[in-house]
Amino acid sequence: MEFARPTLVLNKTICNRNIELMAEKAKRHNLRIRPHFKTHQSAEVGRWFREKGIKQITVSSIQMAKYFANDGWNDITIAFPFNLPEIDELNAFPSTIKINILADNIHTVETVGKALKRKTGIYLKIVNDYYRSGIAYSSVKKIDNLIALIGQYKKFDFKGFLTHSGQTYQSSSKHEIRTIHFDTVQKLKKLKYKYIETFPNIELSVGDTPSCSVSEYFDGITEMRPGNFVFYDLMQHSLGACSIDDIALSMYCPVVSKQRSRNEIIIYGGAAHFSKDFIMNTDGKQLYGRVILKNDNERKLLPTKSYLKGLTQEHGIIRVSPREFKQIKIGSVLEIIPVHACLTALAMGRYITTKGDVIEMMPRF
Amino acid sequence: MEFARPTLVLNKTICNRNIELMAEKAKRHNLRIRPHFKTHQSAEVGRWFREKGIKQITVSSIQMAKYFANDGWNDITIAFPFNLPEIDELNAFPSTIKINILADNIHTVETVGKALKRKTGIYLKIVNDYYRSGIAYSSVKKIDNLIALIGQYKKFDFKGFLTHSGQTYQSSSKHEIRTIHFDTVQKLKKLKYKYIETFPNIELSVGDTPSCSVSEYFDGITEMRPGNFVFYDLMQHSLGACSIDDIALSMYCPVVSKQRSRNEIIIYGGAAHFSKDFIMNTDGKQLYGRVILKNDNERKLLPTKSYLKGLTQEHGIIRVSPREFKQIKIGSVLEIIPVHACLTALAMGRYITTKGDVIEMMPRF
Repeated sequence: MEFARPTLVLNKTICNRNIELMAEKAKRHNLRIRPHFKTHQSAEVGRWFREKGIKQITVSSIQMAKYFANDGWNDITIAFPFNLPEIDELNAFPSTIKINILADNIHTVETVGKALKRKTGIYLKIVNDYYRSGIAYSSVKKIDNLIALIGQYKKFDFKGFLTHSGQTYQSSSKHEIRTIHFDTVQKLKKLKYKYIETFPNIELSVGDTPSCSVSEYFDGITEMRPGNFVFYDLMQHSLGACSIDDIALSMYCPVVSKQRSRNEIIIYGGAAHFSKDFIMNTDGKQLYGRVILKNDNERKLLPTKSYLKGLTQEHGIIRVSPREFKQIKIGSVLEIIPVHACLTALAMGRYITTKGDVIEMMPRF
Repeated sequence: MEFARPTLVLNKTICNRNIELMAEKAKRHNLRIRPHFKTHQSAEVGRWFREKGIKQITVSSIQMAKYFANDGWNDITIAFPFNLPEIDELNAFPSTIKINILADNIHTVETVGKALKRKTGIYLKIVNDYYRSGIAYSSVKKIDNLIALIGQYKKFDFKGFLTHSGQTYQSSSKHEIRTIHFDTVQKLKKLKYKYIETFPNIELSVGDTPSCSVSEYFDGITEMRPGNFVFYDLMQHSLGACSIDDIALSMYCPVVSKQRSRNEIIIYGGAAHFSKDFIMNTDGKQLYGRVILKNDNERKLLPTKSYLKGLTQEHGIIRVSPREFKQIKIGSVLEIIPVHACLTALAMGRYITTKGDVIEMMPRF
């Protein structure tokens, strides 16, 4: 294939293998898998999950829930603290579609409870050492009060506890990811067994891709909601959550300039295309992507000392060895593995498969 | 106005004032202004420039050149190292539209020269201590060779030298910006006077918004190409290139959770909406946005110790004082000033004016 402009290429074979492996893992552990679709945001990619028997999904917004409901999904968790200005849009979902929402505070439960016109599942968002939204697992009184409050509204169906151990993204080893995950599972289990008499079907839902990829411990857990694993990326690779060969997305970027004095290659492909997440490289500097060179149809991943070291709006700057510098021609197209698949996909807005088919994503408006 | 979801709001009054002030400055210095439209990427915003008599524009891609040509612009510089795979698209522009391109190497000049079917202006991209694309101003022999090579192709119209002093973005004071800019201008002038006998109309084109905003020294310069000034943002503010009141863009983001133990507010608005550029805050930490609170219709900018401190895909985390914490309600909408207007606009894909009108941007495909 020829790419005249920065292009996001999706390897469907790898993607399907990633889905299969995670679905098998869930099965092995007797877990429901409810993959997070915010990573791919594509009805077509969603169908690949459905072909493997997956029936429940996670999304991060009402908009995304609508988009996937329109493509036939009817059991959707909106894994984001419920956004009160969208209560009418929640009420507007057909009753045939099961929706679960999250809450971590009285105001949200009360406001939604009063306005709710449809049966809606609700999870309490619990946090364990991750500093975003959620109720600390140890805030027993707050949790008690919220469960009691939820009980006052007939349209609510209290489902249980949901967490996202986002701190695994700061881990330095698989062992650390497993430790964080183990700790989270233990704490969630305590909560579960505290309430299981009142709620015999109480659920525990865990989420992050690093934990779901590397851990084999899911005792007492009901469902997993990983998202990123569908594509994986350099960030997951640096955490030990996947191998390079598990990464299903590449950017293809034309070379527009070469800077011999610095052994740097300038590509058409910047923050507008990759977004701007980075990982720390072995040299202690920011790494925005890794480079694959193609010689005689063989793809060769360059070592980490050759890497995408900087991004401005449309330019990318790649540092290479003098030998690689000679090999790379202006006007040729380089393959780059992105750091953060979700944000790169969002920035690009669609995929081209390795066979050349266009795969659309959710429209922005 | 009510915003149920993250919304990018554009203050047309401020925007028009920014355009006017820069246009006046250009006039005062007898400079052509050729604003960079990659910042706003909107035909409608482009028309505001035209209403002020601006006739030439800068873009960063062939796609963007087409988009604005379709809206009546007929003198366009593509200020990006020419991307060889798009040579047919360059040839396809109607002859009524003046196009200028950039090059910094023999391969590009030769390849374009051979394939070129339309009269096309060409600038040599010069760099002075900014490590992206371009020819070092001191590479006299290379510049000589390139100019000679350009002369071999009749369709080329050699325009002169173009630079972007992107290192001003690393400045710590207005004085430093002025010093960098002064140095660049001096070096460009040397080049100009070296070639002016052969090319009496030889041009010098400078670009970056910080220099164009704070400097009053444009001796020998033909045109300025600032882009960001149309909106400005926190990055420009931190450099001293604008005041807070000059910033024409705000994000409006609903509050979805409050974390009392950390005095943190969680908003619906993350890297998917802001993109992920940051500046360093006075506390040495990454700052992704500043917060404006509205009380009794008065907008009050919170001090820098209250700020948007983190972004994940859809969540933003704002640190505030205990007092502000009490004032901010879940379900209310906060106004946030973005760090990098260009990337935030690109991530959001359209604007809503303070009067509620939708302003479209260039479609992605």
